[in-house]
Amino acid sequence: MVVIKNLIAFEDEAGNRFFSNVESLETARGTSVKAFASFDDLTKDENGKNATVAKLLPPLPDINLPIYCVGLNYGSHAKEAKLNVPANPPVWTKPSAALASPGSSIPMSRFCASHLPDWEGELVFVTSREVRDVSPETASSCILGYTIGNDISCRFFQLPEQSGGQFFYAKAFDKFAPIGPVLVSPASFENMKSARLITRINGEVKQNTVIEEDMIFNPARVLSWMSQSTTIPAYTAVMTGTPSGVGAFQTPRQFLKNGDVVEIEICGIGILRNDILFEDGQDSMM
Amino acid sequence: MVVIKNLIAFEDEAGNRFFSNVESLETARGTSVKAFASFDDLTKDENGKNATVAKLLPPLPDINLPIYCVGLNYGSHAKEAKLNVPANPPVWTKPSAALASPGSSIPMSRFCASHLPDWEGELVFVTSREVRDVSPETASSCILGYTIGNDISCRFFQLPEQSGGQFFYAKAFDKFAPIGPVLVSPASFENMKSARLITRINGEVKQNTVIEEDMIFNPARVLSWMSQSTTIPAYTAVMTGTPSGVGAFQTPRQFLKNGDVVEIEICGIGILRNDILFEDGQDSMM
Repeated sequence: MVVIKNLIAFEDEAGNRFFSNVESLETARGTSVKAFASFDDLTKDENGKNATVAKLLPPLPDINLPIYCVGLNYGSHAKEAKLNVPANPPVWTKPSAALASPGSSIPMSRFCASHLPDWEGELVFVTSREVRDVSPETASSCILGYTIGNDISCRFFQLPEQSGGQFFYAKAFDKFAPIGPVLVSPASFENMKSARLITRINGEVKQNTVIEEDMIFNPARVLSWMSQSTTIPAYTAVMTGTPSGVGAFQTPRQFLKNGDVVEIEICGIGILRNDILFEDGQDSMM
Repeated sequence: MVVIKNLIAFEDEAGNRFFSNVESLETARGTSVKAFASFDDLTKDENGKNATVAKLLPPLPDINLPIYCVGLNYGSHAKEAKLNVPANPPVWTKPSAALASPGSSIPMSRFCASHLPDWEGELVFVTSREVRDVSPETASSCILGYTIGNDISCRFFQLPEQSGGQFFYAKAFDKFAPIGPVLVSPASFENMKSARLITRINGEVKQNTVIEEDMIFNPARVLSWMSQSTTIPAYTAVMTGTPSGVGAFQTPRQFLKNGDVVEIEICGIGILRNDILFEDGQDSMM
């Protein structure tokens, strides 16, 4: 099996989906790369031909799986939210229809725009194979790679009196999970003990932390916990939680507006950049 | 398109999966029925041949989708749990690996067995087509049928100090969502305004309510709410919440034990029957 270095998924000009294992973290639009119609083909090094990157897609071998989310996984965020850190990682999912591409505009309906849409810059890992009952030690060898995600959330629906304290609804809207631009192999990422996660809104830094120092349950512990008595499919993407600096805890509070550019950078992976496009061109009403 | 009456899915002796639209709610093992290899074939009335029911499966056209769950949707259960009913239905999901067949033994690991496994008898509806932004009025025409489910839950992991108040983890374990035995069309079910949901543990009645009188958000309202700015795939199964009488609120508290037989009956649909099989043959330790 080919060990990936930097995995991208993309469409060519004709709209065909391809995977490629690239050298550079910065594969630009218009670049020609060795391309495979499926991730399986790539790992078998079969049927590779050159194709030109027209549009990046989420760098995930399977885009039909639910995306796991982890909550309250940074000390700084638990503190700003004034919430106690539970004994285990709180987990839930986003549906596959929430996936959005790196570089894309996130379409936001009036319904979402008017219910406090907020950003959450996150480290994302993707599993390399089906797992169940894995230990943290084994789990670390079941991670295909790391990328970046934005767990976009309508804060209004996280209020207990709105949805009974369940986070799912607030975060499950279509295109509320942009992920990418590149999936970096553990071998490359593990060397970066001091990797920072930085979120910028229109260029202004809102979140800025050293992941390892601030994160409570690391990816291997999260995956181990998720897999207890539970089959986790191969290629499951897991958004591992967000540090302090979300909009709801800015002073004054700040939510996503029409035209906002959200950049989430993780040093050694790259920058996930999306702009927010209110479907009727209006700003938030709340 | 064929309108279904009573949909079953089953395996024949060779382990092939089939669908059938049957007259009787009580299709027994060993019965020969007109069978279709896919739900699409059934609705087109194509390629039907006779096959013999060896083992019933969940009566769902697509078994690879996450299953939606609704919480706090019965007045009687909100009251016993001493929880306020929120403005909207609390929703989350169970993974597709949680699906279990009617009549099957639910295998329960020591991990689950020792963390307060409990029953939740529920009415389940299944969508007939992809929907987004549907009104409650339109939603009612997007329901393929109704069946029965058990939203098995390890109560320990619903404690806020354990998993931050997110219900997902407690309910996502493999085989924690038995569903079946038959999917009854809305035309048949809508006539039963007084349908009761009754849960029996080893023959003893634990839950017993008139669904329409006790349910807070009806299926059409739930589906409408779920679909706001969110694409809900065709054939999504939705477990609509449980009435009072779960094990955690019995006096004394009662959790699922090795060998327990759980029967959930909804008048006009049938009985979902499963037994509990602790993997090491031991009873709960807590």
